[in-house]
Amino acid sequence: GISITVFVAFCVSGIFAGFPLIEPTARTLKNRMSKRLQVGDGQLTSLNVNLASPCEDYPYLNMDEQYDLKICAPDTPTEASLESNSIWGILRGLETFSQILVEGDTLFSVNCTQISDFPRYAHRGVHLDTARHFLPLEKILENLDLMAMNKFNIFHWHIVDDQSFPYVSSVYPDLSAKGAWSDIHVYTLQDINIVVNYARDLGIRVIPEFDSPDFLVIYNSFLIGHTLSWGVGQPGLLTPCYRESNPQLTDFMASLNISGDYSKLEQYYITRLLEIVSNLTTHNGYIVWEEVFDNGVQIAADTVVHVWKWENNPVMYYPEIAAVTAAGYQALLSSCWYMNYIEYGVDWHKFYECDPQGFNGTDAQKSLVLGGEACMWAEWVDETNVISRMWPRASPVAERLWSAKDATTSADAASARLEEHRCRLLRRGYAAEPFGPSYCPGVL
Amino acid sequence: GISITVFVAFCVSGIFAGFPLIEPTARTLKNRMSKRLQVGDGQLTSLNVNLASPCEDYPYLNMDEQYDLKICAPDTPTEASLESNSIWGILRGLETFSQILVEGDTLFSVNCTQISDFPRYAHRGVHLDTARHFLPLEKILENLDLMAMNKFNIFHWHIVDDQSFPYVSSVYPDLSAKGAWSDIHVYTLQDINIVVNYARDLGIRVIPEFDSPDFLVIYNSFLIGHTLSWGVGQPGLLTPCYRESNPQLTDFMASLNISGDYSKLEQYYITRLLEIVSNLTTHNGYIVWEEVFDNGVQIAADTVVHVWKWENNPVMYYPEIAAVTAAGYQALLSSCWYMNYIEYGVDWHKFYECDPQGFNGTDAQKSLVLGGEACMWAEWVDETNVISRMWPRASPVAERLWSAKDATTSADAASARLEEHRCRLLRRGYAAEPFGPSYCPGVL
Repeated sequence: GISITVFVAFCVSGIFAGFPLIEPTARTLKNRMSKRLQVGDGQLTSLNVNLASPCEDYPYLNMDEQYDLKICAPDTPTEASLESNSIWGILRGLETFSQILVEGDTLFSVNCTQISDFPRYAHRGVHLDTARHFLPLEKILENLDLMAMNKFNIFHWHIVDDQSFPYVSSVYPDLSAKGAWSDIHVYTLQDINIVVNYARDLGIRVIPEFDSPDFLVIYNSFLIGHTLSWGVGQPGLLTPCYRESNPQLTDFMASLNISGDYSKLEQYYITRLLEIVSNLTTHNGYIVWEEVFDNGVQIAADTVVHVWKWENNPVMYYPEIAAVTAAGYQALLSSCWYMNYIEYGVDWHKFYECDPQGFNGTDAQKSLVLGGEACMWAEWVDETNVISRMWPRASPVAERLWSAKDATTSADAASARLEEHRCRLLRRGYAAEPFGPSYCPGVL
Repeated sequence: GISITVFVAFCVSGIFAGFPLIEPTARTLKNRMSKRLQVGDGQLTSLNVNLASPCEDYPYLNMDEQYDLKICAPDTPTEASLESNSIWGILRGLETFSQILVEGDTLFSVNCTQISDFPRYAHRGVHLDTARHFLPLEKILENLDLMAMNKFNIFHWHIVDDQSFPYVSSVYPDLSAKGAWSDIHVYTLQDINIVVNYARDLGIRVIPEFDSPDFLVIYNSFLIGHTLSWGVGQPGLLTPCYRESNPQLTDFMASLNISGDYSKLEQYYITRLLEIVSNLTTHNGYIVWEEVFDNGVQIAADTVVHVWKWENNPVMYYPEIAAVTAAGYQALLSSCWYMNYIEYGVDWHKFYECDPQGFNGTDAQKSLVLGGEACMWAEWVDETNVISRMWPRASPVAERLWSAKDATTSADAASARLEEHRCRLLRRGYAAEPFGPSYCPGVL
C-alpha cells in the first residue's frame, strides 16, 4: 500500500518545474491552459489517488507508467487528484506532485495544473559497478532513491567483474568466499532481496549482470574478459592462457569441427549461454553488450543489444545503433552516458544532447530502441564519491529518456530547472554535487 | 595541553609506512639500522612525550616542526619516546606515531624505529575557496583534520570573491548582509574564531585572503577582478566600468600625474595596500598572486609572490618562479596543484612530480622558495564533494612539501604507501576517494 503525506497547500499562480520535464509539452497542453486560470486561496487538503487497475507486484519492461495529475481543475477548484492505470504511474505521479510543491515560509503551495505524463522510453537505466569497488548496501539504496526522484526505472547491477566477486552464491559459495575483496565486501541473498524489494517499491527493476567472456580475438588467440574473479573460487573454470592457444581448447574446437575459427567458438558459447538464460523460469530475457553483435554472432531475435563503445562520439555510436536495429534487434544506448568519465567544467550538455533514437534510420528501426542507461564504472568511485559523481549528472539523462523529444531540444533551457533539481536533491538529504558557482536557498 | 591515548602495543618486525614519507631517508638512517634489531614481545605501554622548550600559542612561518620519535630504542627496549623543541614538532610526531601503529586482531603493534623528521618546506598549504560555493563550518574543520594527517601547516582561506562575501564584518555588516549568497551562508566572527583555534590546535596557520583588484590591463582599460561581491553591500566602492575608461578615474590619474599609465595606477594602489597591511599590529606579512609581479609593480622586498598561472605546464611555471626569486622575492607555487582540475584516471603523478625548487636557479634563489599550496577553487565543489575531491589527491602534494627530495623521486614508489594512506583516512572516517580498483581491509 501507499502512504501519502498530505501537504496543506494553497493553489497559487507562479512557476513550477519538475524534473524530468513535465511541462510544457504537447501532451500537457491542458496544463498550460489551466495555468491561465486565476485561482484563489482555496485550501488544498488532500490528494485523491485513484489506481484504476489492480496493483502489480513487480515492475517489468513496457509497464504502464502514465499518470494524470490534476491540481484544482476547473470543476474541482479545491481538490487534487492523481490517477493511473498502474501502480507505477501512481509512483511517478507522486514524485511529480512532490516536485511541484513550492515551499513557503509556513506552508507549501502548488500551482493549478493538469498533467498527463508518460515516458518516451521504456528502459531508463542507471548502471552501478560493484566489482571495481564494493558499494555498501546503503549507497545502493540511496542511489535507488535518487533514481526514483529522476523517474529512472532500471537498476542495472554490474555485480561482479575481474577484480571481485561480491555475489554470495548458495550453490557455489567459494566464488565470493575466495573471489570477493574480503569477507565483508559481499552481497548476501538477504542483501539482494533488500535491494530488489526496495527498488520494487520505487517502481525500479533490478537487472543483474554477471560478466561473461567477451571473446576479444587477438592474433588467433583470444582474451576472456571480465571473469578473472570467477576463477579464484572455482579452479578449472577459466581456460588457462598460454603464449599460444591452449591445446585443450584446440582439441575441443577440433571435436566441434571448427578448428581455427574462433568466431564459431564464440557462436557456440553464446548460443549455449542464451539457451540457458531462455530456459530460466523467470523468462526475463537477455541483454548482450554490443561486442556479441559486432563479432557477427547469431543471437536470438529477442536479444537486446546494449551499445556502449565509441566513447561519446556520435559519428561512431549512431551508426552502431542503426546497424543493431537494422538487423532487427532491440537496442539500448550508453556510449554517451559514461558518468565515470569526468572532466573539468560543464559536461552534462553532451549527455543531454545524446538521444538513443538520434541515428538515421526508419521508424521501424527507431521503435526497436528501448532506451538507455547512465553507467557508473567504479574504477575511481566508491562509497566516498559515487552519489556526488552520479547526481545530478545523471539527471539530464533521465530527462532525455523520460520527456518528449520536441520539448527537450535545448540544454540551456534545461539548465535552470536542473539547478533547481540539484537543490531539491540536496534539500532531500542527498549529496548531489553543484554545477558552477551557486547556492541552494535554505541549505547549508 | 595534549592528551595522548596510549595504545597497548607490541614491538614487532614488519612493514610500516607513514605519509608523507618518513622512511627511508638519509636523515632517518638510524631508523633503518634499528629495524635490524629483533625485538621480542616486550609490551609498549606508554609514549613519553618530551617538549624541550616552552609551548608556543600560535603557529607561524618557519616554526620548528622537527621531532624525534624512538620506539624501543636499544637502550630502552620497552619504551617509546617523542621529543621536540616545539609543540609543533610534538604534533607532527604524534601524527607519525599514529600512522606507524599497525592494527592487529586485538592489539596494535609498532616497529622499533628511530625517526628524526622535519619538513623540507616551511609553507605547506591547502587552499579552500568559500565564495564560489559556501562551505559549512564542519567541512572546513574536517579539511583541517585531514591537513594535519598530511602534515600541512597552512590553511589559505579564500574567503570572498566575485560570487559571494560570506565574511561577516562587524564594521561593515552590509558586505555580508547584502553580498553573501544568503543570510545563512556566512561566517561570523565566532565561526572564524572556531576555525582559527581548531587549526591552531593542529599546528595549522590560517591565512585569510580578501581578493583585491588584479588590474588586468586590456586595451587601455582594465578589469578589476574578483571584487564584485564587495560592491553589493558597499555602493560606490567599485569603480563603474564604461565602454571607455571611467572619467572619474581619468581625472584621478591626471591628479597623480600618471594619465594613461595604468601600470602606475596599479603601482599606486598596491603600494598603498601593502602599506596598510604592513601597519597592521599583527605584522604577519603579505602574499600577492603573481600578477602583481608580472605587471612590474614595485613591491616591498619581504613580499611573498604566489605563482599560480601556467596551468600545470612546467615549461611556463618554472621560469616564472625563477624570475620571482631572481628578483629577490620569496615564492610559493600552486600552478601544478589545482585540485579542482579533474580528469579521468590517474592524475596525482603530475602533482607528485612538481617541485617548487624544480626550476633552474642558484641556491640563493631556491632558498627563497617557501613552499606551495594545493588549491581547491570551488566553482564545481561544495560540501557534497569537497572532501572526496581534495583527499587523498592533496596527499602527494603534502609529501612533496614535507619529505626529502632525494627520497621522493618516484610516484610509482609512493603509490602503495598512498593507497595505504587513503585507507587510513577512510578508516578514520573521512571520505577520501579511491585510486583505481581497490578495497580497504576492514572498511565497508
